[in-house]
Amino acid sequence: MLTPDRVDTNSLFLTAQLNRLGVEVTRKTVVGDDLAPLRNAFDEAARRAELIIASGGLGPTEDDRTRDAVADLLGRKLAPDSAVMGMIEARFRQLGRRMSEVNKRQAMVPEGATVLPNDRGTAPGLWLESDGHIIVLLPGPPHELKAMFKMQVEPRLARIAKGVRLLARELRVVGMGESDVDQRIAPIYTRYSDVQTTILAAPGEIQIHLRMWTKDMPAAERQLQDIQEGIVLALGEAVFTTAGEPMEEVVAKALTLNQATIATAESCTGGLLAERLTRISGSSAYFLGGVVSYSNTLKSAWVDVPEEIIESRGAVSAEVAVALADGIRRRTGATLGVGITGVAGPTGGTPEKPVGTVHVAIADSSASKERTMRYLGERDRIRWQASQTALDLVRRYFLYSVPAKNNEKV
Amino acid sequence: MLTPDRVDTNSLFLTAQLNRLGVEVTRKTVVGDDLAPLRNAFDEAARRAELIIASGGLGPTEDDRTRDAVADLLGRKLAPDSAVMGMIEARFRQLGRRMSEVNKRQAMVPEGATVLPNDRGTAPGLWLESDGHIIVLLPGPPHELKAMFKMQVEPRLARIAKGVRLLARELRVVGMGESDVDQRIAPIYTRYSDVQTTILAAPGEIQIHLRMWTKDMPAAERQLQDIQEGIVLALGEAVFTTAGEPMEEVVAKALTLNQATIATAESCTGGLLAERLTRISGSSAYFLGGVVSYSNTLKSAWVDVPEEIIESRGAVSAEVAVALADGIRRRTGATLGVGITGVAGPTGGTPEKPVGTVHVAIADSSASKERTMRYLGERDRIRWQASQTALDLVRRYFLYSVPAKNNEKV
Repeated sequence: MLTPDRVDTNSLFLTAQLNRLGVEVTRKTVVGDDLAPLRNAFDEAARRAELIIASGGLGPTEDDRTRDAVADLLGRKLAPDSAVMGMIEARFRQLGRRMSEVNKRQAMVPEGATVLPNDRGTAPGLWLESDGHIIVLLPGPPHELKAMFKMQVEPRLARIAKGVRLLARELRVVGMGESDVDQRIAPIYTRYSDVQTTILAAPGEIQIHLRMWTKDMPAAERQLQDIQEGIVLALGEAVFTTAGEPMEEVVAKALTLNQATIATAESCTGGLLAERLTRISGSSAYFLGGVVSYSNTLKSAWVDVPEEIIESRGAVSAEVAVALADGIRRRTGATLGVGITGVAGPTGGTPEKPVGTVHVAIADSSASKERTMRYLGERDRIRWQASQTALDLVRRYFLYSVPAKNNEKV
Repeated sequence: MLTPDRVDTNSLFLTAQLNRLGVEVTRKTVVGDDLAPLRNAFDEAARRAELIIASGGLGPTEDDRTRDAVADLLGRKLAPDSAVMGMIEARFRQLGRRMSEVNKRQAMVPEGATVLPNDRGTAPGLWLESDGHIIVLLPGPPHELKAMFKMQVEPRLARIAKGVRLLARELRVVGMGESDVDQRIAPIYTRYSDVQTTILAAPGEIQIHLRMWTKDMPAAERQLQDIQEGIVLALGEAVFTTAGEPMEEVVAKALTLNQATIATAESCTGGLLAERLTRISGSSAYFLGGVVSYSNTLKSAWVDVPEEIIESRGAVSAEVAVALADGIRRRTGATLGVGITGVAGPTGGTPEKPVGTVHVAIADSSASKERTMRYLGERDRIRWQASQTALDLVRRYFLYSVPAKNNEKV
């Protein structure tokens, strides 16, 4: 975990599980396999927390030192445990393999520790209590760790948990900057001192996380509901979800609810919009199809963009975006067509149309709407933001619609 | 980063960059936004490392406390910096937005600190030296952090780095399982005790990381070259890169080198293949266009898939994949057409065509090639693997080609 190659997912799983039990995670530490730093990490952790959960370092090899570090820190002797040895031998028999000599290391248990059986691997977990602290050692492979946590650790923690629970909500906002969002909602969330509010900037959206530790769930629910309503009032239509959903899921729901269909004609986003619309299972109910027309010839051949518009206005223009949207709608018979054209860069920019210039349009049978954007950043970020703006146009189209068939307006 | 919602990628990027400079990462700490634990984390870090790099907590809001924590620890006063204020104001002008009052917090700089300009956001970074330690504070958003590290931090660190460097190579393999790869190459890499070998399974590929710390670069280069050649001999064409490139980049190079063009007709991947092909800047040189034909009608209307094939074989069939590939090639005049049809799930599977069944085909003007796959896993994983197989078919098509115009064969 100290190399650049591995993403840490164990700590995210453990955090979610612990939060649900009412345990707040206050620190995460990643440390190498040497004894002294390991011991030191447990020592530091014990000074600030009641519960310490470690993953990894329980394997059979020389660099699996977690057992030793903890035994040393607590002043406990390590001794071979015959029950653990039996489990490891049984595991090898089950796999039809001979047990290596090195695996005997895994049967070493600090005195006073409770062994947590591992039904998915050879490394047993350990539960130690000392001086009001609980130290839990779990194996590193995620599928072993998860099963052991669920079966062995969660029931034990649930017995000693204090009845405090975490309640969380996530709102997402489009088309506003982080500081702008904060300025508008700070007067709201600062009134609720029990609610932790975190504002995160992600490409194309701002995420507002509300978290609250409580013993009184109904009261906490009401409080989060209050603050959520306050934020929605302050930010209005910019809030696209109060359930932490990605934009494509919100759009999928709007399309389904309105029994509407959609088709896409993309240039600079290269298929990303279609890909996002079809991430959702069952998307064939509303997504009819899309084209990625990189060349001008195909823009005309596939979606009937008049060549004279491309010539007079340029392929990157509001007029072409609208023609793409309208053309794909006509070709597919969809309720809504979406068109995107722009300069994703890093090459291809001009003084009039610099990298990041994107035109996004939607069209129904009677009207169209276009937005001209100027995004900053790299190619993938520009493409993502363009797809986000397109999805947002679709979302806003349905905002005031009465869910009904053939309801078409822009 | 103490909630279950965010995967940590900043530390992976920083580790890779630091290793390249010869700096080993010995500890990673994740800590919340409260002042005391933050200060404590920097204090502990300073006791065991010469270089401390922190990301996040430099924003304009109440819970951005990193500046304060470090200033407090080092006993430095915070004062508003007019140059930083100017940069922030310029940034807002550029975006055409009014600066919020809260953004003034970001212009507070500890005395003696060097300001690292941020050309992608409002939070400047800070470089502090104290007592033989270097403390670098970087913004949290990855695109801001990356740019600032590359432009501001790396050059400074390179000047003071010691002679040890990390040499790293990454090979990627397609179409083989992790244990299969390991079994074939273990006899090779275990012979080189100085080389750390890590084998990672990612969707659609196996990554082989070779790492070696050295003061003698030419000798280390030769050793890594030896082991790399051994691996390529053992795995053959399954190795698609020895430079850690993603598959779409390898395919882009093959298309460019052969002056070939490509077009795509996708069903279950929903545009992902086109999106991957167009991630690369300059892709308009080889990518002509693509269609996402979810409905059977559009498969026929757009790429001339004969209705009788869809009726007799089903939309998910080898024949339809070939017809999609050949149809899009004819419609666009591309050197190669690619067709994908399948069941991405979780719904839509049948006993004969369960979820994960995917047909992938390529066609040139004289022949076609098809692969029928059965992927395991969830929708996004199945879609990714299908796009990977399609790209791999294209890669293999060009494997034995003599780069030349109009070189068409399957």
